[in-house]
Amino acid sequence: MAMPPPACSRRLLPLFLGLFQGALLLFVAVFVTYDEPSVRVEDANLMANQLYGIFPLFQDIQVMLVVGLGLLLTFLPRYGLSALAHNFLLLNFSVQWVLVLQGLLHHFHHGQVHLDLHSLLLAEFTAVTVLISMGAILGRTSLCQLLVVATCEVPVYLTSEWVIVTHLGVLDVGGTITIHVFSCYFGLGMSKALFRAAQHPVHPKETPTPRSDLLSLVGTLILWVFWPSFVAVLCQPGAAQHRAILNTLLAMSASAVTTVVASSLLEKDGKLSPCHLQNSSLAGGVAIGAVANMAVPPVAALALGILSAAACVLGFRFLTPLLARKLALRDQCGIHNLHGLPGILGGVASAVAILVTPEDTSGSPFSQVSPIGHNASKMAGGQWGDRRAGGQALCQVAGLAVATGGSLLAGLLVGTVLRLPCLVRPPERLCFDDSLNFKLQDHAGSLGPGGPAEEGALALKERV
Amino acid sequence: MAMPPPACSRRLLPLFLGLFQGALLLFVAVFVTYDEPSVRVEDANLMANQLYGIFPLFQDIQVMLVVGLGLLLTFLPRYGLSALAHNFLLLNFSVQWVLVLQGLLHHFHHGQVHLDLHSLLLAEFTAVTVLISMGAILGRTSLCQLLVVATCEVPVYLTSEWVIVTHLGVLDVGGTITIHVFSCYFGLGMSKALFRAAQHPVHPKETPTPRSDLLSLVGTLILWVFWPSFVAVLCQPGAAQHRAILNTLLAMSASAVTTVVASSLLEKDGKLSPCHLQNSSLAGGVAIGAVANMAVPPVAALALGILSAAACVLGFRFLTPLLARKLALRDQCGIHNLHGLPGILGGVASAVAILVTPEDTSGSPFSQVSPIGHNASKMAGGQWGDRRAGGQALCQVAGLAVATGGSLLAGLLVGTVLRLPCLVRPPERLCFDDSLNFKLQDHAGSLGPGGPAEEGALALKERV
Amino acid sequence: MAMPPPACSRRLLPLFLGLFQGALLLFVAVFVTYDEPSVRVEDANLMANQLYGIFPLFQDIQVMLVVGLGLLLTFLPRYGLSALAHNFLLLNFSVQWVLVLQGLLHHFHHGQVHLDLHSLLLAEFTAVTVLISMGAILGRTSLCQLLVVATCEVPVYLTSEWVIVTHLGVLDVGGTITIHVFSCYFGLGMSKALFRAAQHPVHPKETPTPRSDLLSLVGTLILWVFWPSFVAVLCQPGAAQHRAILNTLLAMSASAVTTVVASSLLEKDGKLSPCHLQNSSLAGGVAIGAVANMAVPPVAALALGILSAAACVLGFRFLTPLLARKLALRDQCGIHNLHGLPGILGGVASAVAILVTPEDTSGSPFSQVSPIGHNASKMAGGQWGDRRAGGQALCQVAGLAVATGGSLLAGLLVGTVLRLPCLVRPPERLCFDDSLNFKLQDHAGSLGPGGPAEEGALALKERV
Repeated sequence: MAMPPPACSRRLLPLFLGLFQGALLLFVAVFVTYDEPSVRVEDANLMANQLYGIFPLFQDIQVMLVVGLGLLLTFLPRYGLSALAHNFLLLNFSVQWVLVLQGLLHHFHHGQVHLDLHSLLLAEFTAVTVLISMGAILGRTSLCQLLVVATCEVPVYLTSEWVIVTHLGVLDVGGTITIHVFSCYFGLGMSKALFRAAQHPVHPKETPTPRSDLLSLVGTLILWVFWPSFVAVLCQPGAAQHRAILNTLLAMSASAVTTVVASSLLEKDGKLSPCHLQNSSLAGGVAIGAVANMAVPPVAALALGILSAAACVLGFRFLTPLLARKLALRDQCGIHNLHGLPGILGGVASAVAILVTPEDTSGSPFSQVSPIGHNASKMAGGQWGDRRAGGQALCQVAGLAVATGGSLLAGLLVGTVLRLPCLVRPPERLCFDDSLNFKLQDHAGSLGPGGPAEEGALALKERV
Repeated sequence: MAMPPPACSRRLLPLFLGLFQGALLLFVAVFVTYDEPSVRVEDANLMANQLYGIFPLFQDIQVMLVVGLGLLLTFLPRYGLSALAHNFLLLNFSVQWVLVLQGLLHHFHHGQVHLDLHSLLLAEFTAVTVLISMGAILGRTSLCQLLVVATCEVPVYLTSEWVIVTHLGVLDVGGTITIHVFSCYFGLGMSKALFRAAQHPVHPKETPTPRSDLLSLVGTLILWVFWPSFVAVLCQPGAAQHRAILNTLLAMSASAVTTVVASSLLEKDGKLSPCHLQNSSLAGGVAIGAVANMAVPPVAALALGILSAAACVLGFRFLTPLLARKLALRDQCGIHNLHGLPGILGGVASAVAILVTPEDTSGSPFSQVSPIGHNASKMAGGQWGDRRAGGQALCQVAGLAVATGGSLLAGLLVGTVLRLPCLVRPPERLCFDDSLNFKLQDHAGSLGPGGPAEEGALALKERV
Repeated sequence: MAMPPPACSRRLLPLFLGLFQGALLLFVAVFVTYDEPSVRVEDANLMANQLYGIFPLFQDIQVMLVVGLGLLLTFLPRYGLSALAHNFLLLNFSVQWVLVLQGLLHHFHHGQVHLDLHSLLLAEFTAVTVLISMGAILGRTSLCQLLVVATCEVPVYLTSEWVIVTHLGVLDVGGTITIHVFSCYFGLGMSKALFRAAQHPVHPKETPTPRSDLLSLVGTLILWVFWPSFVAVLCQPGAAQHRAILNTLLAMSASAVTTVVASSLLEKDGKLSPCHLQNSSLAGGVAIGAVANMAVPPVAALALGILSAAACVLGFRFLTPLLARKLALRDQCGIHNLHGLPGILGGVASAVAILVTPEDTSGSPFSQVSPIGHNASKMAGGQWGDRRAGGQALCQVAGLAVATGGSLLAGLLVGTVLRLPCLVRPPERLCFDDSLNFKLQDHAGSLGPGGPAEEGALALKERV
């Protein structure tokens, strides 16, 4: 493990992050304040109630992103610390970077930028895209490269979201199109441009062990439990939010059961694949986002959950090997199967739902649903009330196309940037290895991490 | 690991689950809708507030069942993936199955079935019984067998709950009698009928390691933290709910401390047993359920916590070995100690509490407590207001008897079904082994899962 | 592992804890009741709303203390079970002990003691100090000794809090001074008096492994996510609480990023130290507590997060080795770096904030902020309204001095008590080893805990 580190890249990391923290400090000092507190007592009560409404959901989402997603990525048995730490750092860096950009872009012309829990929530949603995209190149990239990814992806996402939600008026309360589809193709584009046609044989440290699979599955379960909060947090309180929660619960329950069916049909001997379980159980949550708050019947949520889980398992079994063979495309965590395929399914489903749902008294399938996207203020219900169902359905498809195409192009570009000589890639033998990123203590002469089996092995070692 | 799988059973699993998903889809498509959204704005606000009240508790319970209970079962060092995955799948399957049955049984005569968060919550409570009963036969059964268990236990539970709560009017807001006692004796009956008099020596993979004990203890702690939500979620909001939370907190705190006392008294050298800690710390939560919302003084909750933890530790130390020796009864997770004994204690305590608590101005010990059981609508306060304390106490005991006897009989029957030739049991050498259920990747030539100790062992292997 | 246990100490543990449980039962039976339930319906609604407001935060804090803090302590690879279990037991014991003392001290002259969720919350805050102080002597002490620590520290803390909050009127909503600084120096004093000048070489079981580091990092992330709940739970609902949440989020985000910068600057090769990440990421949360609800601009929270994380990393790198060398001071978990340095920074920052913040219309920087400390009722806003900013700032510094000096002295005293012959310390070779506290099952002849690597090692063992 005593190898010369890519010194330039090593010095780059603290330099870049340190400068960024300094710039952030300056920016916040000059431009950002908290929301003016309202002076009247009634408002204080209202505010407390609003806080009690949103804060538990916000915490749920924090648990998902920091703990759940982090653990999900620990399936690489020797890369757990790095996966957890990179996920954590990128989340924080991206959120800060969004706050700067949001401040500059959206609110600057109003003078002071007012920070509240809602703006932090939107920043977290943006950061999710970075965390998902990272999955395509996990284990073969340095922290420096990942920070470059975050720096580039955040503004691209904000642009893409502006086009899709604000300009096209796409309805996507749970981020199916804007977040999942976008970040998947961004990640794939990046991976393609970064690794080009390099054919890597299976790395010996790339194969999960039962123990790393177990911890990763715990991450999946944490994500699975809190996913309804992620989908429902931006819904209008009341019936729409209630429905979004129920739709998500149904879709994810169907995904869990379907995953077992599909995996045991496809695997030899009818056994289950840990990888399928870790990913496909969540496919329903990805797909339901765009229709969660629409007035669809419960059966639609179930069907979407079943279809997306099946697509995800099929993707892992057939599509990923095919893409690797034909296009030399690496997708380390299988984000195309978990975020790409179910995301497209969900996007198409939202168009179909808009076309099929019968118009009710108030003239739209969303009588009780305010189409609050991620830029809620821009999307006040009227927009969709004026449109025909056909027009809105078309917009959904257009949004899907923008999210796919735009992100793929941007990802290819960013992937090319990642090949810059100053961003040294880790050498092959240090890929998927925590010792690349962490100063791990030498255990020579010390006792191993666990049970008597290892003790026996050690004792034996000494004897031999 | 290349052994001929029980092919018939292997094909049965996706077939059965797939057909079930299809039937569910059909049923939901035809019969189920969401609750009609109310049109007025005030109602929307009220609804949002109700949702904010129940949803965090619902999420807490989801974490308990999916993450906490799943991790608790990972004490078998080579069966962690299976335990976690089976727990997850059975929860989802059971919830879906309850929705179908509830729809058919309770609401069918009202036409459409209306789905809301409350009905999903009741479905989760039912599913818990399956997850608890599974503990008796964990590790020696196939997933197919467990699905049969779920299929049979859910209707039996719904019947039993109807008899106990609706017919007998038993007060049991936290499910002490209806859930814990029922599922314990169901599981034990099943285990007896399934394994008969077979005397299994201790399986080499059955013994926990420090590391599997650690993960299992994390599961215990998660359950411990969120248990108050489980007990209080169905209480009437206000004083009764507040009291239920406090009683549960006190009982569980007393359990935690008492477990250490009892374990260190019983174990040689005064050391603690990880198994005692993993289980008995939760005994107070099991026992307090039936009295949690009653107007008992805080000391009653403390005493119940102390007694139930002591009973649980004593059960593990003396009763389980005795039952194994005399009755050849296997109880893999010790559910009799965690759910049976404390459940009976709690049931008896509820009868005593009703007899002892002095009547207050409103003529019952529940002046501020609406006796909301799991079928809240059926139990509107009047029922108990009419009864004498003696009558109600008798009902509690009768409920306990029904829960014990009925579930034992049903369990014996279901255990016999599990012996059907088409449900092949796993061979002895694949018991407690994830490779029975999961396609685990071959690690020959790859690096081990962790530290240098294993690396050393591997290096050595190659050298030899 | 067959060694004669310190028999006297072994018998002491159940005796002491058992007697305590009995005394608690008696005390609660005679003196404690629940809050009188209010009879009117409006009050019930209000109460339900209050409960919904505080209960999710209470649960968050429970998760932090039981799961998060417990996991953080599992960085010792062979001491995970003990760390998790001791943390859990001490929390419960301390909470019960606080309830007794609080009952006796504060409310006894009002007759009956009324228990509610708020008093349990305050008890948890007190218990935290014990859990933090324990970090200084983790792994080299018996459970008996730790119970003595808890027994002594709780009354000392209550006295210290009375002096600092009630008497001096220090503003410290998040416990920066009262909890973190106090418990840090209490722990250091204890460690000094207990170990004196004994120079221990690095114990072979003291070094973390990648796997124990991973689990410990998960604990950090859980603490990181829920920290805002800890800081904000005692704030006045409304704007102050909202601001406290935002300040904490900003400070902790800055800490996370700064930790990476500082760690990679200080470590050889620019690699990260797992220990820095596990601790310094939380430093911002420690430091922000005293100013969280003040009307400081967002940049102050960011700056505090950056400074405290830098101080924490520098402390680990330079100060801890220095203290060990010069003063023979052991600080196993580095509590001086995580709680001491950031705590002092936060205390000083609160004084500066009070001096610098411009007075607004209502004559104080806290127009919207009721200075609710841990004894909220005693601190009704007027107190600070009368004072000049200079006087209040001086009080903050005085509070810091009391917390540091008083706790150091008390800690030295308690550490001396821990050397009593009846409290046998674990022998050197059983330090940092679960087999000291737990009856671990013999694995001779059984299979190891995990993957094929270990199986190979075992197979090899048999062959050799």
